[in-house]
Amino acid sequence: MAETPPTGPDFSKGDGLLPAIAQDMTTGEVLMLAYMNQESYQETLQTKRAVYYSRSRQRLWRKGEESGHVQEVAAVFYDCDCDAILLKVNQVGQAACHTGRRSCFFHEVTPDGTRVVGPQIFDPREVYGSH
Amino acid sequence: MAETPPTGPDFSKGDGLLPAIAQDMTTGEVLMLAYMNQESYQETLQTKRAVYYSRSRQRLWRKGEESGHVQEVAAVFYDCDCDAILLKVNQVGQAACHTGRRSCFFHEVTPDGTRVVGPQIFDPREVYGSH
Repeated sequence: MAETPPTGPDFSKGDGLLPAIAQDMTTGEVLMLAYMNQESYQETLQTKRAVYYSRSRQRLWRKGEESGHVQEVAAVFYDCDCDAILLKVNQVGQAACHTGRRSCFFHEVTPDGTRVVGPQIFDPREVYGSH
Repeated sequence: MAETPPTGPDFSKGDGLLPAIAQDMTTGEVLMLAYMNQESYQETLQTKRAVYYSRSRQRLWRKGEESGHVQEVAAVFYDCDCDAILLKVNQVGQAACHTGRRSCFFHEVTPDGTRVVGPQIFDPREVYGSH
């Protein structure tokens, strides 16, 4: 069955913002989920570093711009509906999360409530200062 | 540093819908991204099968209800901002995508355009009928 694949993610969906998953290219660990607009997606492809769109700050967010913990992008995928993005990355500094943990998904749901998993790799007060 | 973890994902963010990633619990492959509301999240925890909220159909979407390809949920995580969910699943039938592929992320972005990766595991016409 011949298929003509689409040309790329469709940013007309989701009010111009699509969710983007960053996955460790070596371990397969899911590091974080953030959002991209067309501009951040294009810059990601061009620079091979993950660039997101910060919904809270309403501007491009070059991951690691403050901490130095950039994500080197090895491969980019998008899904069947063209409305979600998957990046395979090398996480410089080992930790993707602003809390100093490797993955942002460190809250595990258990019958007894939330369990915090994963050690802190860095102290956020040292990386980001006291703000 | 003592931390009191939050009680769960915060569905007041994102207009009541949060993105949920399904990851193969064995291979680490990212299978799909869909959305959950509070009700689908609670049913997922209770039944240990992935239940999403279909934005197009505007109703609960019990993954596999038509194809039989349910996702058995082994673990549930949520992220630092409490606005994204990660499921570790066993994908029954091997394929998560409605196109018959293992992962929905089968469009790889290359300098020459989109490349379709990953073989079809089932023929969607046989699983879903001709509609």
